[in-house]
Amino acid sequence: RIDPARLWDSIMEMAKIGPGVAGGNNRQTLTDADSEGRKLFQSWCEAAGMTMGVDQMGTMFALREGEDPDALPVYMGSHLDTQPTGGKYDGVLGVLGALECVRTMNDLGIKTKHPIVVVNWTNEEGTRFAPAMLASGVFAGKHELQWAYDREDHDGKTFGDELKRIGWVGEEKVGDRQMHALFELHIEQGPILEAEGKDIGVVTHGQGLRWIECTVTGKESHTGSTPMHMRKNAGRGLALVTELVHEIAMKNQPNAVGAIGHIDVYPNSRNIIPGRVVFTVDMRTHILPKLNAMVAEFMERAPKLCEEIGVGFEAKIVGQFDPPAFNETCVKAVRSAAERLGYSHMDIVSGAGHDACWINDVAPTAMIMCPCVDGLSHNEAEEISPEWAAVGTDVLLHAVLETAEV
Amino acid sequence: RIDPARLWDSIMEMAKIGPGVAGGNNRQTLTDADSEGRKLFQSWCEAAGMTMGVDQMGTMFALREGEDPDALPVYMGSHLDTQPTGGKYDGVLGVLGALECVRTMNDLGIKTKHPIVVVNWTNEEGTRFAPAMLASGVFAGKHELQWAYDREDHDGKTFGDELKRIGWVGEEKVGDRQMHALFELHIEQGPILEAEGKDIGVVTHGQGLRWIECTVTGKESHTGSTPMHMRKNAGRGLALVTELVHEIAMKNQPNAVGAIGHIDVYPNSRNIIPGRVVFTVDMRTHILPKLNAMVAEFMERAPKLCEEIGVGFEAKIVGQFDPPAFNETCVKAVRSAAERLGYSHMDIVSGAGHDACWINDVAPTAMIMCPCVDGLSHNEAEEISPEWAAVGTDVLLHAVLETAEV
Ligand SMILES: NC(=O)NCCC(=O)O
Ligand SMILES: NC(=O)NCCC(=O)O
Repeated sequence: RIDPARLWDSIMEMAKIGPGVAGGNNRQTLTDADSEGRKLFQSWCEAAGMTMGVDQMGTMFALREGEDPDALPVYMGSHLDTQPTGGKYDGVLGVLGALECVRTMNDLGIKTKHPIVVVNWTNEEGTRFAPAMLASGVFAGKHELQWAYDREDHDGKTFGDELKRIGWVGEEKVGDRQMHALFELHIEQGPILEAEGKDIGVVTHGQGLRWIECTVTGKESHTGSTPMHMRKNAGRGLALVTELVHEIAMKNQPNAVGAIGHIDVYPNSRNIIPGRVVFTVDMRTHILPKLNAMVAEFMERAPKLCEEIGVGFEAKIVGQFDPPAFNETCVKAVRSAAERLGYSHMDIVSGAGHDACWINDVAPTAMIMCPCVDGLSHNEAEEISPEWAAVGTDVLLHAVLETAEV
Repeated sequence: RIDPARLWDSIMEMAKIGPGVAGGNNRQTLTDADSEGRKLFQSWCEAAGMTMGVDQMGTMFALREGEDPDALPVYMGSHLDTQPTGGKYDGVLGVLGALECVRTMNDLGIKTKHPIVVVNWTNEEGTRFAPAMLASGVFAGKHELQWAYDREDHDGKTFGDELKRIGWVGEEKVGDRQMHALFELHIEQGPILEAEGKDIGVVTHGQGLRWIECTVTGKESHTGSTPMHMRKNAGRGLALVTELVHEIAMKNQPNAVGAIGHIDVYPNSRNIIPGRVVFTVDMRTHILPKLNAMVAEFMERAPKLCEEIGVGFEAKIVGQFDPPAFNETCVKAVRSAAERLGYSHMDIVSGAGHDACWINDVAPTAMIMCPCVDGLSHNEAEEISPEWAAVGTDVLLHAVLETAEV
């Protein structure tokens, strides 16, 4: 079993970098804080006897040698970047849990046939640079490297320039590695495990996602002196589309969600009717035809709603992945690890996207989930107990040891 | 008559300071650009033989002496600050038109019994520091000086600190002046004069206004993994309230308006359900009981709508004025000036708030309006013709000359 106190200490140490405003973290990708977090992680990996490789997307791969020089490595990890108002565990548990597994193997002198690699994927969150899971997406061949470099943040800075600025562009070609398997431990970010009283979620599937960036165009004019019948209020377009997204998600229950999280209003002045509103719709479900039908309904009805009130509507997909079904052997390794260790478990669908969802397309992959308080995530108040973290990491260790062949 | 070319040149010269991104201006109050615009205006006033006074709110008063040392001055002016994406004429025409009147009087050697003062009120727009018409409001005794100094912009900077920073805190106590009368020339900012083919709007009344700052509080959580029934989506509160404001304005037609121009979403990330949305409702009509009824209906229904979807609602008034009825003698002076000069005119209600609306409470006041293309204002594409500007300024000149007694 792993060392729960050491694991927790490392998580708390990492949380000191890029503190949030309410007890969580703001360590967004490719910021100075991200760079600092990477350095701390690298120093820990090196202290644990691993050697660090970095690819052209800045993804970090810490290698622990195996006994068979020809065997492909078993990967485990997640991401160290956070939301602007993120928690201390989302992603971090998966990376530092993997590090703790290696530390434990070192303590116990465990040797594996397959090498072990602990990975920190760049820009999982996608807040600063859409889409989410950008580096793992390039790794899995979903995006071109240059396309990823060209992604812009809100200030027009590109991913490529910012990666260079913080000094984390590696030499290694992205996707050049072959994997024997990959395991990602992550907090559930939802309420199910806690409600069901289970220690472990054995993730069999993930939800597919579509991020639809919409622009509603009205006419910027004076709120006081423009008569009602002459207005083109882009804010009303946002209002109608907000309710449409909700309606579509509700009628596809259970197992479908939809909301608008990001909204920019132009020019955003108290006495100017909004001339333009740009926002992103997030729609998900784990059933592909249902997901496509939801998006199709949205794309048909949203422009009509806007047309009825005299404003323009345009939409483009800025992030997407189809619902993954994880590798059966890897999923079984997770389930039997939980059973061997005597932890309660249940099969679960991941509500969030994860780097493992992309990697699943190019290597045998599975995920392990542990509960989080009230299902709250993407919130600085995100919380887990040290026990939950330890149990999840124990299962990770045993699934990886079985797969890497002790 | 005034010199149309000189007037237009001055307007174009001022428009070079704080240029916008689309041909208009961004010369928001108490910015460096505002300070530069003030300096240019001061130099022009001094060149026209006037002496400048500045009060503790930074309002500028340029004096042209009269023949009777005991006579109260006649004031004319407006404001030089703009919206973040404002036009070149909103406010500016009223200040530089007044300056042009003095230049014309100088050219023609006209002497008046009453002194003449050209005024540039600070922070008319209220975008950066709510409420609008802040300095004229303090002048008219509607706000305390210290309360005005404590107003904060989006970055937490205070009005008082910023006024000091740009170097325009005067010594003169605010409101210490007594006025024989005040005239404000302004573009209509609405479509009526152009549609009716009239040169001049004789403003008899103004709309009253309420700015209601609302905060909808939900629960910030993951857009993917938070089940629909567990969400508290503050964005839906915004949507329902947006449509409520529209409904209330529509059912109070004609002569009532309502919209939400300013919206801040927290934390504003694509994959986070909005935890909090702060926005300002702008409601207006020129009939006081109707205005109060609209606000009362809003205050009753908005919290209920939010409660029904499980989010919190709070509201406070951050800007307000009751509908003004302008001084009959001053209004008559405007109407008869238009008639004497042979310009077509009609009585009109001001849709926007103006400094004159506050001053009307402490001095005989009237306003003159000239058309603007498509009624468009609070938009960089705001446009007027040099002829319209000249006609409005001619009427201003003649109304002021009659009132100041040649
Ligand atoms: N785990 C996680 O929050 N990933 C970001 C992508 C998503 O929104 O699901
Ligand atoms: N004239 C003008 O736009 N004033 C600002 C106050 C208002 O919103 O009416």
